[in-house]
Amino acid sequence: MKATDRQLHLNVFLMGNGHHEAAWRLPGSSPQDVTNASYYVKLLQTAERGKLDSLFLADSYALPPTIRYKVLQSLEPFTLLSALAMLTSRIGLIGTASTTYSHPYHVARQFASLDFISGGRAAWNIVTSTNDATAHNFADEKLPEHGERYKRAAEFLEVVQQLWDSWEDDALVQDKASGIYADPGSIHDIRHQGSYFSVRGALNLPRPPQGQPVRVQAGASETGKEFAAHAAEVVFTAQNSFADGCLFYTDLKSRMKKYGRQPDELKILPGFCPIIGDTEAEARDREAALHDHIQFDYGLLRLSNLFSTDMTGFELDEPVPVDFLAQQSEVNGHRGRYQLYVELARREKLTMRQLIVKTASSRGHYSMVGTPVQIADEMEKWWRGGAADGFNVMPPYLPEGLELFVDKVVPELQNRGIFRSEYTGTTLREHYGLQRPASIYGQTGQLAVKR
Amino acid sequence: MKATDRQLHLNVFLMGNGHHEAAWRLPGSSPQDVTNASYYVKLLQTAERGKLDSLFLADSYALPPTIRYKVLQSLEPFTLLSALAMLTSRIGLIGTASTTYSHPYHVARQFASLDFISGGRAAWNIVTSTNDATAHNFADEKLPEHGERYKRAAEFLEVVQQLWDSWEDDALVQDKASGIYADPGSIHDIRHQGSYFSVRGALNLPRPPQGQPVRVQAGASETGKEFAAHAAEVVFTAQNSFADGCLFYTDLKSRMKKYGRQPDELKILPGFCPIIGDTEAEARDREAALHDHIQFDYGLLRLSNLFSTDMTGFELDEPVPVDFLAQQSEVNGHRGRYQLYVELARREKLTMRQLIVKTASSRGHYSMVGTPVQIADEMEKWWRGGAADGFNVMPPYLPEGLELFVDKVVPELQNRGIFRSEYTGTTLREHYGLQRPASIYGQTGQLAVKR
Repeated sequence: MKATDRQLHLNVFLMGNGHHEAAWRLPGSSPQDVTNASYYVKLLQTAERGKLDSLFLADSYALPPTIRYKVLQSLEPFTLLSALAMLTSRIGLIGTASTTYSHPYHVARQFASLDFISGGRAAWNIVTSTNDATAHNFADEKLPEHGERYKRAAEFLEVVQQLWDSWEDDALVQDKASGIYADPGSIHDIRHQGSYFSVRGALNLPRPPQGQPVRVQAGASETGKEFAAHAAEVVFTAQNSFADGCLFYTDLKSRMKKYGRQPDELKILPGFCPIIGDTEAEARDREAALHDHIQFDYGLLRLSNLFSTDMTGFELDEPVPVDFLAQQSEVNGHRGRYQLYVELARREKLTMRQLIVKTASSRGHYSMVGTPVQIADEMEKWWRGGAADGFNVMPPYLPEGLELFVDKVVPELQNRGIFRSEYTGTTLREHYGLQRPASIYGQTGQLAVKR
Repeated sequence: MKATDRQLHLNVFLMGNGHHEAAWRLPGSSPQDVTNASYYVKLLQTAERGKLDSLFLADSYALPPTIRYKVLQSLEPFTLLSALAMLTSRIGLIGTASTTYSHPYHVARQFASLDFISGGRAAWNIVTSTNDATAHNFADEKLPEHGERYKRAAEFLEVVQQLWDSWEDDALVQDKASGIYADPGSIHDIRHQGSYFSVRGALNLPRPPQGQPVRVQAGASETGKEFAAHAAEVVFTAQNSFADGCLFYTDLKSRMKKYGRQPDELKILPGFCPIIGDTEAEARDREAALHDHIQFDYGLLRLSNLFSTDMTGFELDEPVPVDFLAQQSEVNGHRGRYQLYVELARREKLTMRQLIVKTASSRGHYSMVGTPVQIADEMEKWWRGGAADGFNVMPPYLPEGLELFVDKVVPELQNRGIFRSEYTGTTLREHYGLQRPASIYGQTGQLAVKR
């Protein structure tokens, strides 16, 4: 197979000791490492050895109600990603920040700062928060309604982009002789007054190396998809089959035209949880070792949280009550994921126990057990067949789950000429083939500050 | 002179290309480095070679109105300090966050995360913001009144401390066999409902390595000093003479008793800007090289900003209008610094030009030009004489201003037995001789998580 211009993109999504909910209980796992920066450094150096495009860290601003059963996701993203920037050189760094419970001046500034620290490797996963526990930490009785959250997100993003652009690319003069450090005529107060925010001044940092850090999004509702079509440059999504992946891909890309955007300005990366063995039997054994440690009490809590409904009274070996769930009119949080679970349970006629096991590896993302060749085949099929521009790789357990992917699956993709053997750029925008955006105030498109 | 139990403490305060406002214009300065993390790494490695206690980064959330004339302060503190944590091993990392324009859940979490990343080296410089430009970026027409800001600060700090303590030190169980990761009975919703904040849940991170990151403060008004006496563990202050230093030191320490605190639970570090030469003449030459690059247009703007009064119409060679300034009833920002300038101008009968030059090196902090021995003598005098527990060292230009201090003044202090020759602890609390606080929920006082 010969090389092609279009290349596959690979993000690694790190969470706790891996995405399988019982990964922390494996003999090789270290739950104490989850608050240890050097743990993530080693993982990222493995990912960089595999020439992966980026790392993604999810986030929320509340303690999970399931803390008894499951390790923390990770440290706080801005601090951890900045730490990781210093001991990596190429891999992109995608952090999550909520538009519902943050302020645009802080978010714009912290991402701009991360972009400087990393030499142009920062990206923002834009979320609107999904649970009332977060609301309770920010003086809200409950999370604002779904549509309201997205209206706020749109305005929040607009403010952040204006702040990133508030210094023109050539605003830094730095002329020692004349004593002019910056040209105030090239630095613009944004004077934003909207429904949710009032922000008058310019950012107190120059335009970041990428012009604007990359915008990432993962909403799956109708509103979420419209937001992505309008604003996102990378989209993470949970798709349970190649067919579903194709439908989502076509749907989302076709929504872009009305916003004046070309399809390749947005990269779609379905979640992909690979359980890898040199033989199918070895892979199955690894899956079984993980599933052996599942705690069904945790599974019931996880489903309760997802469905915003107490599921702890349902019998594990009875069918999932799909009709009951479908009647729940108000799911204000993970709306897209909720639909996916209900459809999966209906289609495959699952019991509660089966649904818990089926989603234990990756919470509804596509999970596959197989050899490196089988996994590369499946990835190539999705990528060539119009279901994906790449994948959000979710190692089920760490560090081995990532090492096997980098050492066995990545070379297979490289041999097929569909994934890079070396980084060809230094910024995250270059890895994803995304243009450096021109400033709304200037059109030079050049780096203002070199690292 | 023999070693003593009480030791001097040294913090390095890094800002731009150094504290002298014209430092960026020196031939050896690189203004482009101010957005470059590796610049700070080299400086901190120098500071660590000198066994300094900590680094301090100031901060504000608005573009300075003087951006034409002077380099940026630095990058955003949480991101930069986290980056620096990875390439240093002992030096403490003091970041600034405002209680007026931040949210306690984010601040508690980012400092806790930095404390994990750095292995117990995080500290929070608590500020209340000092200018309306910041207010304008957060939907306020003007900064809240001084007393109001401190009321909010007190409640903000209370929430942050509760969040840091919300996990007892032994809440992490991490028992793979039983599947219990954390004991929910040892993790406490804080259920705070106050005048300014409502925060219900626990932090989504375990108790940080230091129990609580160190609390730093620098307010100089009456309200600021009461706040420090009650809540601060390290205080930065601007004192223009040994006599003033003694008054402040005695005043602040004597205020602590009514809060049930011992004097050594708070370390007072006056600002100290050393311009160092092997001979006095060499030191004077270095000062002159800096002063040669002063821009008086900038100086007038700087004074206008400090006094909240337009000073640009005043003649440079006329006396500072102290009576006019003393009548300005409302200075809502840098209240303590304002008084210091007015008193300095009155006492020394300064012209506007002289006041600008006099404060160009360190904006009103104590500045000294001399040999390493003279500088060590002065430091020892303040430290032995009841004016200081140590110093907030403000290199006037970088990197040389810091290198000279570390290579020439620090050995002089070490030879006198009053400053450490090696770090004896790993955490910032250990460097400053501050106890790890017991949790409000538990009394073990032990590290929950080892790095």
